[in-house]
Amino acid sequence: MSVTAPQGFEAAGVAAGLKSTGKPDVAVVVNRGPLKVGAAVFTSNRAKANPIMWSQQAIADGVVEAIVLNSGGANCFTGSFGFQTTHQTAEKVGELLDVSSGDVLVCSTGLIGTGDEVFRAKVLEGTAAAIGSLSADGGEDASLAIMTTDSRPKRAVVSRNGWTVGGMAKGAGMLAPGLATMLVVITTDAVLDSAQADAALRAATRVSFDRLDSDGCMSTNDQVTLMVSGASGVTPDADDFVAALAEICRDLAEQLQGDAEGASHDIAIEVVGAASEEDAVVVGRSVARNNLFKAAIFGNDPNWGRVLAAIGTTDAAFDPYDVDVSFNGVRVCTAGGPDRPREEVDLTPRATRILIDLKSGDATATILTNDLTHDYVHENSAYSS
Amino acid sequence: MSVTAPQGFEAAGVAAGLKSTGKPDVAVVVNRGPLKVGAAVFTSNRAKANPIMWSQQAIADGVVEAIVLNSGGANCFTGSFGFQTTHQTAEKVGELLDVSSGDVLVCSTGLIGTGDEVFRAKVLEGTAAAIGSLSADGGEDASLAIMTTDSRPKRAVVSRNGWTVGGMAKGAGMLAPGLATMLVVITTDAVLDSAQADAALRAATRVSFDRLDSDGCMSTNDQVTLMVSGASGVTPDADDFVAALAEICRDLAEQLQGDAEGASHDIAIEVVGAASEEDAVVVGRSVARNNLFKAAIFGNDPNWGRVLAAIGTTDAAFDPYDVDVSFNGVRVCTAGGPDRPREEVDLTPRATRILIDLKSGDATATILTNDLTHDYVHENSAYSS
Repeated sequence: MSVTAPQGFEAAGVAAGLKSTGKPDVAVVVNRGPLKVGAAVFTSNRAKANPIMWSQQAIADGVVEAIVLNSGGANCFTGSFGFQTTHQTAEKVGELLDVSSGDVLVCSTGLIGTGDEVFRAKVLEGTAAAIGSLSADGGEDASLAIMTTDSRPKRAVVSRNGWTVGGMAKGAGMLAPGLATMLVVITTDAVLDSAQADAALRAATRVSFDRLDSDGCMSTNDQVTLMVSGASGVTPDADDFVAALAEICRDLAEQLQGDAEGASHDIAIEVVGAASEEDAVVVGRSVARNNLFKAAIFGNDPNWGRVLAAIGTTDAAFDPYDVDVSFNGVRVCTAGGPDRPREEVDLTPRATRILIDLKSGDATATILTNDLTHDYVHENSAYSS
Repeated sequence: MSVTAPQGFEAAGVAAGLKSTGKPDVAVVVNRGPLKVGAAVFTSNRAKANPIMWSQQAIADGVVEAIVLNSGGANCFTGSFGFQTTHQTAEKVGELLDVSSGDVLVCSTGLIGTGDEVFRAKVLEGTAAAIGSLSADGGEDASLAIMTTDSRPKRAVVSRNGWTVGGMAKGAGMLAPGLATMLVVITTDAVLDSAQADAALRAATRVSFDRLDSDGCMSTNDQVTLMVSGASGVTPDADDFVAALAEICRDLAEQLQGDAEGASHDIAIEVVGAASEEDAVVVGRSVARNNLFKAAIFGNDPNWGRVLAAIGTTDAAFDPYDVDVSFNGVRVCTAGGPDRPREEVDLTPRATRILIDLKSGDATATILTNDLTHDYVHENSAYSS
């Protein structure tokens, strides 16, 4: 169900020929109201794709009628022609739904540099076809149409006291903070105004997608969009809503992690005893981005030396000679020296937990990442993206 | 010849059983004077090995009589026992050479966490054996004894008007700025005082080893040491000396790059048109650390989109939509859009040149890196280091 689980939404996914495989590649999600509230967060990469530049403008008034997403081409670094393609796509939706094109968001994903005349024609045709296929059961089709190297669709639904949040996501590589190569659409029938929606989305993504750092590479096309129909008529408690939204976001983030290109381990790096949450994030991320650590996990090697070498590059508050490190519950390093023997650690399960105690405070954060594998290298050397 | 090419130096390399292969693993380089000037730069990692902590103290007075280096164990995160091992090693050298142990530098490389009683005994025995084998022709033996995963020794010599600079290096992974997993010893018979030696070493390493970023991983044990005997009796022009030292350092840095673990391409990322040299370095490094870019080069894919996505994560002064990118002389991206077809680029040679024009000033810098390959993953997952 995903984005059509909450009341007030219709969606569709169709094949427009953008993917050489003939699989679905254009999705549309429409908000039938009564509210047309929206919020979005975008990649912090300065190299932004055309749909990002469009959507950043379109979201400014907090009103979203619909979102159209294509896979099979990122429409990034395609010049003014590419921006016009995005504009025309929004106009096509506006015309067919009889809404303002300025209230239509656009997302694209695929190879950077793809966005020629053929791409434009297929996107516009596909957009029209998707609008012709809109349905209150269309969430599943939409989630299939946004997949790129994903091996499976990502969907999540949470229901609370009279209101529901649903979401879909794509992304399997270039998954790094601020955000990842990911497109996410979340819908809700709860009653929220645009300021509430924006604040809730920022709070939820900060502790979920922003803590997923699969390969340290930040995309040009990332967008997480929240659409609010208010169709349930129920105004949620603000904290409850943020909690539900964060649950959806974490669920989708873990699905992204679990499907990361070529990965053989899903690694949760839990940093405790930090002087601040920011320190905990910085320390966790330094480990998540260390290729030697990531390769060691692939080789089932609890190499705590590489963990300490990674965190030593940060300026977080801690003494390297006070730090404890555990792998899957076995403390192999105590106070910056060897503790339990490496042989006691079992790193064969896919789920891997690294615990780093900085002994410098009470703050904590968990960063999600993946290992560095032969398959990661293969997928990212053999195929352009 | 390497470190024994300049007059006034003796060296040796012996097998002390630290390496399971039985290959040489302890090296000593002794300065016979008349000057006993020294300078050193160290890893900027806060997680520092015991020999780094020792050598940082020992170099403070600018006097170096000798340096002892071992492979087969990093003596890092081995607690106070490990520090005492380093101290005892310096004392052993001091006793046998009749010099102050405080003028003896120590370097170690190998697996972090290695530094037990057995390690200590072998290092001390090996140190004594090396001192017993000192010779004015010992540079080659010394360069062999510092190798870890290196496939070949790294040596370089430059002679100018009456004076000579010689150097040896080891390092094949964890090669990243500030510095790399590398140990470097450079000797000269030119006449310099300690302030001149220190300034020259910092100037030379800044534009050589500090611009080598093979895998983004910073080691705990890096040290570059310059030893000055003054035995030629010739005082060099300061600029000439820095130029010669920089030439040696760049030569050794390129040898390190060329032997990087599992690499199939040596990539020079030349950034031009930068507003400042610092901007050029930051931009070059962001590309050098991007796994997707590095995997693309392994796959012979001139993926300029990944270059722009990488540089967009920096805060350097440029407009992503003004940037030009060339691969091996073919401009595939002009002003942030596609230019020449990818098919025109030949990425089959090992030497790879990326040219990035930021169109924002006159500053420039070149960062050296390697591609991300199956063999890199294999070497760093199958073996601890």
